[in-house]
Amino acid sequence: MSSRPSFEQYLQQTTDEVTEALKEILPVHWEMPQSLRDAMQYSLMAGGKRLRPLLVVAAAEALGAQRAAALPVACAVEMVHTYSLIHDDLPAMDNDDYRRGKLTNHKVYGEATAILAGDALLTHAFYSVVQAGRKNGVPAEALLSIVEDLSELAGARGMVGGQVADMEGEQGITDLEQLQYIHLHKTGDLIVFSLLAGARIGGATEGQLDALRVFGRDLGLAFQIQDDILDLTGDEQKMGKKTQSDVNQQKVTYPFFIGMEASQEQVKSLTQSAKEALGRADLSDSSRLMEIADYLMRRDH
Amino acid sequence: MSSRPSFEQYLQQTTDEVTEALKEILPVHWEMPQSLRDAMQYSLMAGGKRLRPLLVVAAAEALGAQRAAALPVACAVEMVHTYSLIHDDLPAMDNDDYRRGKLTNHKVYGEATAILAGDALLTHAFYSVVQAGRKNGVPAEALLSIVEDLSELAGARGMVGGQVADMEGEQGITDLEQLQYIHLHKTGDLIVFSLLAGARIGGATEGQLDALRVFGRDLGLAFQIQDDILDLTGDEQKMGKKTQSDVNQQKVTYPFFIGMEASQEQVKSLTQSAKEALGRADLSDSSRLMEIADYLMRRDH
Repeated sequence: MSSRPSFEQYLQQTTDEVTEALKEILPVHWEMPQSLRDAMQYSLMAGGKRLRPLLVVAAAEALGAQRAAALPVACAVEMVHTYSLIHDDLPAMDNDDYRRGKLTNHKVYGEATAILAGDALLTHAFYSVVQAGRKNGVPAEALLSIVEDLSELAGARGMVGGQVADMEGEQGITDLEQLQYIHLHKTGDLIVFSLLAGARIGGATEGQLDALRVFGRDLGLAFQIQDDILDLTGDEQKMGKKTQSDVNQQKVTYPFFIGMEASQEQVKSLTQSAKEALGRADLSDSSRLMEIADYLMRRDH
Repeated sequence: MSSRPSFEQYLQQTTDEVTEALKEILPVHWEMPQSLRDAMQYSLMAGGKRLRPLLVVAAAEALGAQRAAALPVACAVEMVHTYSLIHDDLPAMDNDDYRRGKLTNHKVYGEATAILAGDALLTHAFYSVVQAGRKNGVPAEALLSIVEDLSELAGARGMVGGQVADMEGEQGITDLEQLQYIHLHKTGDLIVFSLLAGARIGGATEGQLDALRVFGRDLGLAFQIQDDILDLTGDEQKMGKKTQSDVNQQKVTYPFFIGMEASQEQVKSLTQSAKEALGRADLSDSSRLMEIADYLMRRDH
């Protein structure tokens, strides 16, 4: 009998499997301009924590589903996340030359191709969701709900709405409520989506979905406040980008409003309330999701 | 007993219904930055022929489906078309200030919001497809196939692939084959999608879908060659943009390769072969689709 893998092993294995699946995500027989294929692959393979795919897989497994059924949807959310970073980095937006220590997409492929590679990744995410049905037998009704969730949580009332508020906020965020709106939508909604999608693959009840929504909301907010903190205190090499960049760009963060210590307290208390919500979800095995919550709070990059 | 509406009446009524549905496409209770809502609505309401929604509705009705069931999908394809125009017009792409006689999205809302409004429209298109099930009872399997078709035909191997080839082609298209690739994907694939989607709502067989694929391919190519011709000969006011702009920008068109007369012949023969394919599709009533094919060939804008 094999012993249960450690969290570090679980994390490494899941990240590796997602990265392998992403390498094959564009069917080789699909005809398309080589530059487009390269640009899409470049950003998909540019590293990153694969947090959102991890949450899809962990949520599906927490409900007793097979990992294979969750992988296409795990890849879908990573494609949506990746497209959002490509567009965020554009000259008309944050105008970043580097991301995770590598040149940004538009610095390598040019602005036009970067915009279109982002568009194609977003579009292909929905293709990948459908493949969970074609290849792994996830029921059509569950997949349609996943498509619906993704289009809501990644769209105008979700991630894109948060990004617009963030762009506008650069002309002056005046209160914590506004900053929280940005964090909840720009970052949080895709984290909520990941949990809901994994849970739907596992056949979750409405009650379980509701509990996971609360878990995801608190976890996402804790994650983003931790990001704000690490941006001010983190090690440049570990973060893969210039730290204090948000300070230099006059970007308003959680510590700006409530101070560093209270921000750290918030991360802890939000993680705690997230775990309490998770405890109420009545899952087959919530231990990996619990470990992920602790891991995100402890991380230094 | 009421007589059958003329084609002009049918066209006007369908266009009006689609435009009304698009006005309501963003739920009023959805919270989002006002600038994002405005930017999305601005381009959705900036006119246009509503050709793709018309094809969705006409294909659905040709198979005996109710128009109401097709409208959410008709709106979806118009949102995808609209997002592609917003992104095409960006400074990094075609850098156009006007479209259909109105300022382009980024000229009104700025580049960042225009990029994000495009992203949100693309995302919302998938939401709208799902609503055809939630509100009108279209079966989940049919909707999943529509999501799959849309993600293929609007994505890397479809419309976006065609757009990348077009951008790269501006540095010199050397043969007709390359131009045909661009036309088939940049324009044709969304026309094919519209027909397939409508047909799937009507419960089409694989044989009917195959015939409609050929119809759509030929119709789309005829449509785009006609656009090339009208760009050279058309009336500026009717076209809503500067004519001869493609010549001035050294853009290579069908007439450039095979001359004006042969291009006009191509439009006719492609329309003819499209109609023959449609004849083989064995639909309940293909008359409106036949009329649309003739109408597109005759149009002067």
